[in-house]
Amino acid sequence: MRTSIATVSLSGSLTEKLTAAARAGFDGVEIFENDLLASPLTPEEVRDRCADLGLSIDLYQPMRDMEAVPDDVFARNLRRAEHKFRLMQRLGADTVLVCSSVSPLSVGDDALASEQLRRLAERASDFGVRVAYEALAWGRHVNTYDHAWRLVEAADHPALGTCLDSFHILARGTEGKDLEGIEDIPGDKIFFLQLADAPLLDMDVLRWSRHYRCFPGQGDLDVAGLLRHVLRAGYRGPLSLEIFNDVFRQAEAGPAAVDARRSLLALQEAVGLQDVVGQGELPAPVVPTGVAFTELVTPDVAPAADLLAALGFTRTGRHRGKPVDLWEQGEARVLLNTGPAARRDGTVLAAVGLESPDPAAAARRAEALLAPVLPRRRGTADVLLDAVAAPDGTELFFCATDRPELPSWIRDFEPTGERPAETDITGVDHLQLTQPWHQFDEAALFHRSVLGLEPRASVDVADPYGLLRSRAVATADGAVRIALGAGPGPGEDQDRAQHIALATSDVVAAARRFRAAGGDLLPMPGNYYDDLAARFEFAPGELETYQDLGILYDRDAHGTFRHCYTRTVGRVFFELAQREDGYEGYGAQNAPVRLAAQHAAN
Amino acid sequence: MRTSIATVSLSGSLTEKLTAAARAGFDGVEIFENDLLASPLTPEEVRDRCADLGLSIDLYQPMRDMEAVPDDVFARNLRRAEHKFRLMQRLGADTVLVCSSVSPLSVGDDALASEQLRRLAERASDFGVRVAYEALAWGRHVNTYDHAWRLVEAADHPALGTCLDSFHILARGTEGKDLEGIEDIPGDKIFFLQLADAPLLDMDVLRWSRHYRCFPGQGDLDVAGLLRHVLRAGYRGPLSLEIFNDVFRQAEAGPAAVDARRSLLALQEAVGLQDVVGQGELPAPVVPTGVAFTELVTPDVAPAADLLAALGFTRTGRHRGKPVDLWEQGEARVLLNTGPAARRDGTVLAAVGLESPDPAAAARRAEALLAPVLPRRRGTADVLLDAVAAPDGTELFFCATDRPELPSWIRDFEPTGERPAETDITGVDHLQLTQPWHQFDEAALFHRSVLGLEPRASVDVADPYGLLRSRAVATADGAVRIALGAGPGPGEDQDRAQHIALATSDVVAAARRFRAAGGDLLPMPGNYYDDLAARFEFAPGELETYQDLGILYDRDAHGTFRHCYTRTVGRVFFELAQREDGYEGYGAQNAPVRLAAQHAAN
Repeated sequence: MRTSIATVSLSGSLTEKLTAAARAGFDGVEIFENDLLASPLTPEEVRDRCADLGLSIDLYQPMRDMEAVPDDVFARNLRRAEHKFRLMQRLGADTVLVCSSVSPLSVGDDALASEQLRRLAERASDFGVRVAYEALAWGRHVNTYDHAWRLVEAADHPALGTCLDSFHILARGTEGKDLEGIEDIPGDKIFFLQLADAPLLDMDVLRWSRHYRCFPGQGDLDVAGLLRHVLRAGYRGPLSLEIFNDVFRQAEAGPAAVDARRSLLALQEAVGLQDVVGQGELPAPVVPTGVAFTELVTPDVAPAADLLAALGFTRTGRHRGKPVDLWEQGEARVLLNTGPAARRDGTVLAAVGLESPDPAAAARRAEALLAPVLPRRRGTADVLLDAVAAPDGTELFFCATDRPELPSWIRDFEPTGERPAETDITGVDHLQLTQPWHQFDEAALFHRSVLGLEPRASVDVADPYGLLRSRAVATADGAVRIALGAGPGPGEDQDRAQHIALATSDVVAAARRFRAAGGDLLPMPGNYYDDLAARFEFAPGELETYQDLGILYDRDAHGTFRHCYTRTVGRVFFELAQREDGYEGYGAQNAPVRLAAQHAAN
Repeated sequence: MRTSIATVSLSGSLTEKLTAAARAGFDGVEIFENDLLASPLTPEEVRDRCADLGLSIDLYQPMRDMEAVPDDVFARNLRRAEHKFRLMQRLGADTVLVCSSVSPLSVGDDALASEQLRRLAERASDFGVRVAYEALAWGRHVNTYDHAWRLVEAADHPALGTCLDSFHILARGTEGKDLEGIEDIPGDKIFFLQLADAPLLDMDVLRWSRHYRCFPGQGDLDVAGLLRHVLRAGYRGPLSLEIFNDVFRQAEAGPAAVDARRSLLALQEAVGLQDVVGQGELPAPVVPTGVAFTELVTPDVAPAADLLAALGFTRTGRHRGKPVDLWEQGEARVLLNTGPAARRDGTVLAAVGLESPDPAAAARRAEALLAPVLPRRRGTADVLLDAVAAPDGTELFFCATDRPELPSWIRDFEPTGERPAETDITGVDHLQLTQPWHQFDEAALFHRSVLGLEPRASVDVADPYGLLRSRAVATADGAVRIALGAGPGPGEDQDRAQHIALATSDVVAAARRFRAAGGDLLPMPGNYYDDLAARFEFAPGELETYQDLGILYDRDAHGTFRHCYTRTVGRVFFELAQREDGYEGYGAQNAPVRLAAQHAAN
């Protein structure tokens, strides 16, 4: 189906918004009136610009406080409306959104409302314009989709239809049978469909709508369920996003438009719409089965290599064509890259290799979902690697490490002949990746739709210098776990460290071995252990051991989590994590203590 | 009375929080448990640090989910509590906060709750600790102050009292008679009083409390009214601030602590408490009667001087000791300062002179309310000027320009002999000052408490690149009007322009004269005027004139506002404003169009 986006959903000037929408592949736009008013372009210039960009103008919006008013007020409203119909002719827009009135001048008289809507539609049709009437969730007298439809039906004018908006319908808690009524509306009388999601927030619906809407799949509303009803009604117009969101207002229009369109592609897939990408069906999700490698890029190899060695890693390979070393310990593999990509700002976690059952299909799906595809030829002549960039810039490689039938990235490495000693470190427990603050919600949607990872609930973590947000995405079996973190607003996100948590079957042994090998463990405050003693019971000496090694402790309904941290090298540190008996979390409870210790250590 | 602040209200490490609280003049602190847990200081070291800083530890907090639980759970709770009582001994804290339970394990059995609270208090008293029991607004069974008090009264133990929290009481909408019940609690059984304000937000009370609390006087709750009841009950303990706020978490602890203490000083004044500053009564407010001058600091005098000349200003004086010129037009006076203070970042609005009935008293009050006092000797030998710094760094001078009995700043200027022609420009309509984003609420409180200006409601303004907030503060007669503006979060606030709005009785004439004198008016988009034509009726040719000159139009219930803008010089621009028939606003409706035009012009 055609996709559209309201200009209010993106930041910048009208020109910037239109350009971003077109580049992201939208077919059309809704022109938000205030964006036009503030633009130096004439309506004709906007029309031409859209045509040049291949965008149709699917809706002009909004017209407010129109219906169910005294005669003299309605006469003034009609005069105002005519002005706008004339403008729409210049703009080349043929549908206008009329929101149900919130005016104290309006009365609860359906016959009057219907009659005035009919007169408005008559006037509109003189200008070749159609009126799409929508119930605002906080409309004074009309605030449900079925009430709006009853008025439209009674008005019975070909230029009058209804506009459905997923937020206005779902925010009122409408569900089940009450939603099925949508299917009774003739599809061709649904003139427009606006789609928005939102996190479930218990607050007044106007504030909720104006500030907290998000793209479908980022929030808690069943937008897909609603869309199914609208499709069954026979609606074939555009799927259009109308998102009021304080964060998007500040975010760059280009990436936000890409995020927006990805959300619509995933939504179409969710409801079983075919040909969602305009060139055939979206390739099915290919869920990764593990972390093949992580890649650290560093201008100065010694500190990172020392850290890996102390953790028990051994340098097992040297890239045949590039200054990249392969280090291994158990199933954990780390690439140390000192090549030209090495950044000025020190050691960073630049890439993640995901073990994939079908790397090529995974890459095709990622590309279809608008992930930027990276140059494939990373390795030597024979080994191609499929890779895309995540929203945070991390390079994601789709790999088949140990399958003879597929080329493996590991063949690019000339073995050193050394193998790591077997220890209690078994592989990667999870990765923690810092997200741009304004793409925190989008990051979860990206990892779900592109990689097939399931998002967990978002949690707030109190850093001494501000609240952070953290949200895990993981495969059902926990083979891949990524904790996405972000600050609450623009600021020092780019300075925040990322980390690799290594899974160990014995964190005490691992920590001792690390220390004996010269590694520095992050010390934790004594008060923390005093509190642990108050909260849990431990064997004699156990807490003293934890305190000595800086091991933190958490317990959930399933099991326990013991974990400690290395000092930070550049922007990267390691965690040693012992997860037992099905513990599901990431030690978020302990994060404030760890963050304070890291601030103190810097 | 003694003042205290919970460490959770400030950002940073525990040490940074304590230092900030002491420097701002607080007498004590509440130690928030998580701040202690994350601190590398031992409890003894925290105790000593507080003693060195002259801070008492007035409360340790919080203890949760303690009462009305099955016996075995209570036994575990007591064990946990004993741990904390021992810790409090080391800390030298003698009162602990116990919040009413939210645990699903707790039962609605007052007798059991009371009995367990009594046993908890018995155990506490063994350690020399007192228990202050508080009803959380979202407590599972106990969520009102009177319910908490009934349990405390029934438990009847000398080491058990209640803690009152203005947020928890007022957030539930408790008022009138229901608040008077506070006066029935014996004052010595109110062990603690926590004060917090909040904006009225219709959302779930837990989220509201955790993220949106603010300092008393910044929000909409009647904290002063509540405090009066508590004082009548005979409470003589500390007035303590416990503020959970996402913004404060990111703000610098030092300025935030000063803001916090100012809010308590103003609150004490509001309830008629004497000796609020520890050294006698707070001097009464001295409301300014006008804007004496604004001062632009510039490294390059020509663009600013050209702009002033085009606006009809004449250079009427030259400072006797510094490179500062006085420019006048009507009652508007602008100082152009090219001295050493001239900043690298171009022309800025650095100072405002406020006409004051009693400059010395105004300065004494400002100082007592913790405004940083600036060096008095700004002028030549004889003319002292009282000045303080506003939270945004603007220097505020308290002036008496035309009163023979008082020294006038204007005597520092050697007249040039020239006088400005009389025009329709009469003086200053308002000033717009950009605030640091995290001090937006504090700025309103500063201007109200220190300067006696009344805040109006805060409004959101849609800039193309993010929502801005704007809030006016003004004298009742409008002689001084300041619009405080801020972005929604950390970012480019420091780059935002400030402006001076000149009052004119004929904006069309003023704009034409400005243009004829070579001035550049900010052009506004044609679409804006098309919309005006749809919304209002104008005389023939009127709109064309406005569009030609870039004049914006607004109307409220009282009157009309016509205004236009100069181009920006450095970080400053001018507005020409014609305010008629008691129009009360600042043209906020037009601000998005103006902001877009400014972005387009840059």
